[in-house]
Amino acid sequence: MLYITRKERFNAAHKLHRKDWSDEKNMEIFGKCSNPNWHGHNYDLFVTVKGNINADTGFVIDLKYLSQLIKDKVVEKIDHKNVNLDVDFMEGKMASTEVLAQAIWEQLADAIAAQGCALHCIKLYETENNFVEYFG
Amino acid sequence: MLYITRKERFNAAHKLHRKDWSDEKNMEIFGKCSNPNWHGHNYDLFVTVKGNINADTGFVIDLKYLSQLIKDKVVEKIDHKNVNLDVDFMEGKMASTEVLAQAIWEQLADAIAAQGCALHCIKLYETENNFVEYFG
Amino acid sequence: MLYITRKERFNAAHKLHRKDWSDEKNMEIFGKCSNPNWHGHNYDLFVTVKGNINADTGFVIDLKYLSQLIKDKVVEKIDHKNVNLDVDFMEGKMASTEVLAQAIWEQLADAIAAQGCALHCIKLYETENNFVEYFG
Amino acid sequence: MLYITRKERFNAAHKLHRKDWSDEKNMEIFGKCSNPNWHGHNYDLFVTVKGNINADTGFVIDLKYLSQLIKDKVVEKIDHKNVNLDVDFMEGKMASTEVLAQAIWEQLADAIAAQGCALHCIKLYETENNFVEYFG
Amino acid sequence: MLYITRKERFNAAHKLHRKDWSDEKNMEIFGKCSNPNWHGHNYDLFVTVKGNINADTGFVIDLKYLSQLIKDKVVEKIDHKNVNLDVDFMEGKMASTEVLAQAIWEQLADAIAAQGCALHCIKLYETENNFVEYFG
Amino acid sequence: MLYITRKERFNAAHKLHRKDWSDEKNMEIFGKCSNPNWHGHNYDLFVTVKGNINADTGFVIDLKYLSQLIKDKVVEKIDHKNVNLDVDFMEGKMASTEVLAQAIWEQLADAIAAQGCALHCIKLYETENNFVEYFG
Repeated sequence: MLYITRKERFNAAHKLHRKDWSDEKNMEIFGKCSNPNWHGHNYDLFVTVKGNINADTGFVIDLKYLSQLIKDKVVEKIDHKNVNLDVDFMEGKMASTEVLAQAIWEQLADAIAAQGCALHCIKLYETENNFVEYFG
Repeated sequence: MLYITRKERFNAAHKLHRKDWSDEKNMEIFGKCSNPNWHGHNYDLFVTVKGNINADTGFVIDLKYLSQLIKDKVVEKIDHKNVNLDVDFMEGKMASTEVLAQAIWEQLADAIAAQGCALHCIKLYETENNFVEYFG
Repeated sequence: MLYITRKERFNAAHKLHRKDWSDEKNMEIFGKCSNPNWHGHNYDLFVTVKGNINADTGFVIDLKYLSQLIKDKVVEKIDHKNVNLDVDFMEGKMASTEVLAQAIWEQLADAIAAQGCALHCIKLYETENNFVEYFG
Repeated sequence: MLYITRKERFNAAHKLHRKDWSDEKNMEIFGKCSNPNWHGHNYDLFVTVKGNINADTGFVIDLKYLSQLIKDKVVEKIDHKNVNLDVDFMEGKMASTEVLAQAIWEQLADAIAAQGCALHCIKLYETENNFVEYFG
Repeated sequence: MLYITRKERFNAAHKLHRKDWSDEKNMEIFGKCSNPNWHGHNYDLFVTVKGNINADTGFVIDLKYLSQLIKDKVVEKIDHKNVNLDVDFMEGKMASTEVLAQAIWEQLADAIAAQGCALHCIKLYETENNFVEYFG
Repeated sequence: MLYITRKERFNAAHKLHRKDWSDEKNMEIFGKCSNPNWHGHNYDLFVTVKGNINADTGFVIDLKYLSQLIKDKVVEKIDHKNVNLDVDFMEGKMASTEVLAQAIWEQLADAIAAQGCALHCIKLYETENNFVEYFG
């Protein structure tokens, strides 16, 4: 069993804000992250796959395939977009890094399993100081 | 003569978009950076000051002062904000990295000169792949 | 279950030295790290918390709270200090990165548990080439 | 139980290529990585050891010993070399990052066990975007 | 006047070796960099352009154009290749970082001048510890 | 004319403190950097040399020589030491990053000139947020 990780990147706007809360409560709970006119980040995304090494290729998974899959299912939908408004797989969800990592897992797990290996971890950096990891 | 640099950071939303252009022309010129619902970045800001070393302190400029000045004049106004909508010193300007670097220079140059040294360079990273430098 | 990590930093002096050993033995075992007049590092500290996502906020833990907790319990006590001489929670202990990581765990675990989640890992970099991880 | 990691580096040439496949099939499976005249990388190697803290030294393992061991058993044999042609412990194997990580594990595991601790993980970066982890 | 920089990357094999020198002299002058079977690097390339800001776009140069230009004229020719054997613009030249930086300048300067700005600097990293800068 | 840079590292303790000032004045001017029991840093040192390319070697300067020179004249004297107490070339000087960069210049300039090129810049990072540059 071996683990292989591919890093991709996307730049997006978001805010942490509940419409069913007052502006005061949003500010109290979410602080500056609730700014009505949005803010944004350069997100770094690490997708880790686990599996056995294919004896012919020396690969767990073809990284060209994995990179293209992440681009098709995640990056194309979120890069240079607004996480709250523009991203189909985030519709109706809080735009926190935690929830976003879980949603990215849902986008990728089945396609990776179809390759004969398994999605192991979604690691998502919001800034150099904050990141989350989700293991399914 | 010696050069000293302080790094600060801010996270902000922006878009590259001219209201006097059609959506088609905005897309043609600015591409995905013109997304109507914004996108955003983790900006890294490097402020370089040049001057002589003070014989008593061994300092060109007090970095605690310089850091606080950058926070007061730049970071507090732009961090977790929208560059196009929320930032007084960007009002009426294109929200490109180039124009933003020049505007940050204007925010800082006089206060640094008042310390007996000189602002030398504003270096602003939009992503790890793109940055601008402005020398006044 | 989701894991979220906050990075903080501190700069400190230390040495690896036992008073009950001769200078020769200290040098033999600890090498240049036993320099009597100290040396120092820019330490990078990663605190990982695990827990469930709060449905209202999308958070595992409020990162503003976690960052402030780390500052109060760790960074304020050790930043720009001497690990061997100035830090109450290191009194009587070897100032190795391993022991320091364990001591930081003790400083933080209860307060994090009181938030309804759990401290998962203390990861502490001494240099870009050396780091330790402690899981309790 | 505590985990400690040492980072070392090496620069090497390699290609992904099977002699028993046609050039067309090599290109189809391995893409540009199969370039007949080689390409190369700056590899970053992280070796993680787990064990208990020695009460006298505060160490899990002496990092000077661990660093020298990695240099003797791995870096001296592969740095500024060709992975496919020059490295005894890769003879007859595919020069993929996955296989290389496993082969590095074999080079180090016994010597680390002889120190009273255990090799936990080999993490090997081929580029900033691709890395593998092997846990034995 | 403002300076804007684009970072691109390529991975390549090379060696420092003169055919008109004995193996002994090659080893004496170039050390392990003269390994007959090659070694390689992840090169980081920074291309800096200087010019005035276009009032309509806020740009010095369109970074999409600059990135594509670097890919067409440099990266496509050298990425996953052998600098000594495969790269037309390095034919007959020493494969040192210094000479490579100059050759990359020649590849790019005219096309950038045709955009109404000027190539200012080629900065080329061979490793995290070694880089060169060429200003024409 | 071409510029080549070598990065080296050292870890050291220091404090900013004048014996001819009261503790109160030291604290007022130098803040937490004046802690009597020292603090410390992982310093990153970049030495830039300018010169012409040697037609035989493709080199401006032999980086093996430059690296060894920096180790002999700087790193061996300061690594795992106390900048204020242990370093001959800092005797009687303030241990600020500015003054240290100038002192490192003095250690290296003549030996580099004797190689037929010239020391161009000493760039010294105290932390990821603070660095100085000295051009002689």
